[in-house]
Amino acid sequence: MRIDINADVGESFGAFKIGEDEQLFLQITSANIACGFHAGDFNVMETTVKQAKKHGVAVGAHPGYPDLQGFGRRELKMTPAEIYNMVVYQIGALKQFCEIQGVPLQHVKPHGALYNQAAENYEVAEAIAKAVYDAVPEAILFGLSNSELIKVGKKFHLKTAAEAFADRRYTDEGNLSSRLLPNAVLRTYEEILDQVREIIFHKRVKTVSGNWIDIEADTICFHGDGQNVAQNTALIRQALEKEEIRVLQVGAKDDSAL
Amino acid sequence: MRIDINADVGESFGAFKIGEDEQLFLQITSANIACGFHAGDFNVMETTVKQAKKHGVAVGAHPGYPDLQGFGRRELKMTPAEIYNMVVYQIGALKQFCEIQGVPLQHVKPHGALYNQAAENYEVAEAIAKAVYDAVPEAILFGLSNSELIKVGKKFHLKTAAEAFADRRYTDEGNLSSRLLPNAVLRTYEEILDQVREIIFHKRVKTVSGNWIDIEADTICFHGDGQNVAQNTALIRQALEKEEIRVLQVGAKDDSAL
Amino acid sequence: MRIDINADVGESFGAFKIGEDEQLFLQITSANIACGFHAGDFNVMETTVKQAKKHGVAVGAHPGYPDLQGFGRRELKMTPAEIYNMVVYQIGALKQFCEIQGVPLQHVKPHGALYNQAAENYEVAEAIAKAVYDAVPEAILFGLSNSELIKVGKKFHLKTAAEAFADRRYTDEGNLSSRLLPNAVLRTYEEILDQVREIIFHKRVKTVSGNWIDIEADTICFHGDGQNVAQNTALIRQALEKEEIRVLQVGAKDDSAL
Amino acid sequence: MRIDINADVGESFGAFKIGEDEQLFLQITSANIACGFHAGDFNVMETTVKQAKKHGVAVGAHPGYPDLQGFGRRELKMTPAEIYNMVVYQIGALKQFCEIQGVPLQHVKPHGALYNQAAENYEVAEAIAKAVYDAVPEAILFGLSNSELIKVGKKFHLKTAAEAFADRRYTDEGNLSSRLLPNAVLRTYEEILDQVREIIFHKRVKTVSGNWIDIEADTICFHGDGQNVAQNTALIRQALEKEEIRVLQVGAKDDSAL
Repeated sequence: MRIDINADVGESFGAFKIGEDEQLFLQITSANIACGFHAGDFNVMETTVKQAKKHGVAVGAHPGYPDLQGFGRRELKMTPAEIYNMVVYQIGALKQFCEIQGVPLQHVKPHGALYNQAAENYEVAEAIAKAVYDAVPEAILFGLSNSELIKVGKKFHLKTAAEAFADRRYTDEGNLSSRLLPNAVLRTYEEILDQVREIIFHKRVKTVSGNWIDIEADTICFHGDGQNVAQNTALIRQALEKEEIRVLQVGAKDDSAL
Repeated sequence: MRIDINADVGESFGAFKIGEDEQLFLQITSANIACGFHAGDFNVMETTVKQAKKHGVAVGAHPGYPDLQGFGRRELKMTPAEIYNMVVYQIGALKQFCEIQGVPLQHVKPHGALYNQAAENYEVAEAIAKAVYDAVPEAILFGLSNSELIKVGKKFHLKTAAEAFADRRYTDEGNLSSRLLPNAVLRTYEEILDQVREIIFHKRVKTVSGNWIDIEADTICFHGDGQNVAQNTALIRQALEKEEIRVLQVGAKDDSAL
Repeated sequence: MRIDINADVGESFGAFKIGEDEQLFLQITSANIACGFHAGDFNVMETTVKQAKKHGVAVGAHPGYPDLQGFGRRELKMTPAEIYNMVVYQIGALKQFCEIQGVPLQHVKPHGALYNQAAENYEVAEAIAKAVYDAVPEAILFGLSNSELIKVGKKFHLKTAAEAFADRRYTDEGNLSSRLLPNAVLRTYEEILDQVREIIFHKRVKTVSGNWIDIEADTICFHGDGQNVAQNTALIRQALEKEEIRVLQVGAKDDSAL
Repeated sequence: MRIDINADVGESFGAFKIGEDEQLFLQITSANIACGFHAGDFNVMETTVKQAKKHGVAVGAHPGYPDLQGFGRRELKMTPAEIYNMVVYQIGALKQFCEIQGVPLQHVKPHGALYNQAAENYEVAEAIAKAVYDAVPEAILFGLSNSELIKVGKKFHLKTAAEAFADRRYTDEGNLSSRLLPNAVLRTYEEILDQVREIIFHKRVKTVSGNWIDIEADTICFHGDGQNVAQNTALIRQALEKEEIRVLQVGAKDDSAL
């Protein structure tokens, strides 16, 4: 058994620092790097691609809405054509830093509100998948397990990776519980480990209403902007490795499923 | 004899329209496309790359300072490392649209205050040239004739194109007269044609103080945001072609000088 | 009979010019001045307040979403608390220019998506009305005729002005037909005059599906960014004045209804 | 003897947190609140004005360049007219939150590059002083001790407060040593206390080259974004109070000098 561990990194902006990237890079196998719209800037992007390279962590583009104040978490009503161009732009910008550093762009994962809309809305999902297909057809599309985005990605014959969240609660429909609600985020190491183990070993997750729903995960997300995230990720990675789970980049070659 | 005609295009931003791009594309051979920082946005960039392709006009990236309100014309004191990353980011974003449309990125030309600083300031020029070298080493670096930027570009073994301006006045030092001064811009067709003919046939230009200075030009710039620019460009192009000047992309292969 | 004529002005941003403000000011009685978020900038705001003063046109704040690219026309999911603060901020900024010029802030009218949401959504309407009440309780709140915003404004004991649109089509529910649909905007002078006359004389408007709905209007909006808007507004104002309609600022004192 | 202690607060932006405002408010007497351009946003501004009110700390507007990425620390070449409008806009926005909370706007202090330019450049200083005079003539203008800004403020008959920095090194000319240089900022409590004591008791400060220069200070600035700033400020305040220095708002009424 194998699993990929991903986190959002490179979310600082100028003098505004977010996250414990340096420690996180020791634990994760895939890095979702902000592309300057909802977080990150061109200096942070360069630094973060270099960090990923140094730590042997696979790089992914993490495009989001052009809403720095809202950190890309507020829905913005764009047309599919606008979303397509927005994603192409951000992929291109990050890919350029990757090319200069000689690292491949392993994956693309939309951020925040864009990610959540792509989980449920066909048109948003299609705009993103088309952008990935046109810009980086060899990249893996990360999306919520069972989401529209994953379905549309397969329609485009993209490689896809189903994602589950270590520290976010799920609705009965399999979506992430809104951050505006209390308890949307798991806080303790024990809760997080429980959820991760259920996902990996039993392919299921307990929802906000106490039901179990099926879930399949190629990659588990830890949030780069959470508290103690680097420490929690380290502990959970160790726990998984003790149980003989191989923590491996989703794009690593010995994964016959990809 | 041959000359390239370039103009800044793709400068609209959302609902804010600038320029007569559709008509300009009929006259120019090289297009400097804004990359979303001082002008342009991801939608405009896609449209403009498609227009360039349709008209057989060569595409260039036109990176500028992140200052939409100032249209990239206000100096912003950035470190060379910041300028390097800023230019890499913008090149990458535009290049992605080019790749999708299957058109090469012929050139890179910095915009506005960045262009003017690169003409005189070695550190700024080096940051830009290094970004071009690292991101698109096969691209042609456009810079003011006799400028630091052209000198540094050659040091990096980049192909370079010396640029002269059809409608801007020059100082005795060979720089562009500041737009804050009256008469910085030539307004009439006759004045503009005179200046273009002097540049091409006599490799000289008359300065604000009435002196002649030497100038060498591979490409002539017409301003996309000027008045009647498409019409003036058309008339001048016709006038040049009557005098057997070939108007040709600076990157076109039969130019042994490149 | 009397009517106020308003238009959105001050929508230019830096080098990006929008609208025919100078001509529009000759025709309108109330000016909705953009406050730097969806359009306008601090320089444009100063100029526009001065123009309004010169022409004796009443000044209103025209706050919108912080979305310059989308011109404030894309919905952005903000909490009511965020909307409240956003509107307070923009009112304060514009009011400062008014204070310096010695002109009162007659009214506040939300822009674009914010306006449309406030027409139907109680929470959005309340956030805006509360901001106006707290910041400028003596100002008149402009809102779509029959809208939530007008109802909530009355609840706050604000003076309100019901607004109808000269050149926008209505749905059967009395909302504005989305700009994403064809025919959302009336283009010819004849169509516009017809609609304005029906609104003023018969208090009704024909919807996209051909039905008549009741409408009451204290003020009629002409769009500052439309084509020929200044000319159309002039012609329609003349037509109204011929029919003995007094075109008067909604806040002018001899209006006993206010 | 009395002294005012000020600090920059309200510098967070959306999800991006900066500073230890809650603790700082326990120590300072004057708060410089960012106005949404170089830092701060409308939500942060409301929260911060409320905090200041709760703690009885005087509120000041802290306008800066529209450069969030550079935190307002990068010079941006604006004309005096642009600077005037930019400062008016930011003062107005903050003042609106003050009016709603019923707290006066005690002072205005320009931020970062704008502050440094105003210390040396007459035109920049005049644009700022004129904006303060036109917008809030009763407010106190904060500026570097011995600076152009203080001189110009007096010319406009504004109340002024000369400012010295607890933790910044000075050049022999009395300016702040650039943050791009090593040792621009004092790091230890001991160094900072020494400098503050020299300023208050001996009206002098030691420069980067080891010379003593004269300095007069009505208010001492502690940096809100520094490390341990709240703790250092508390210790130094205690040390000063032990030496019978009264720590008092610069605008408090028993200061006959104002």
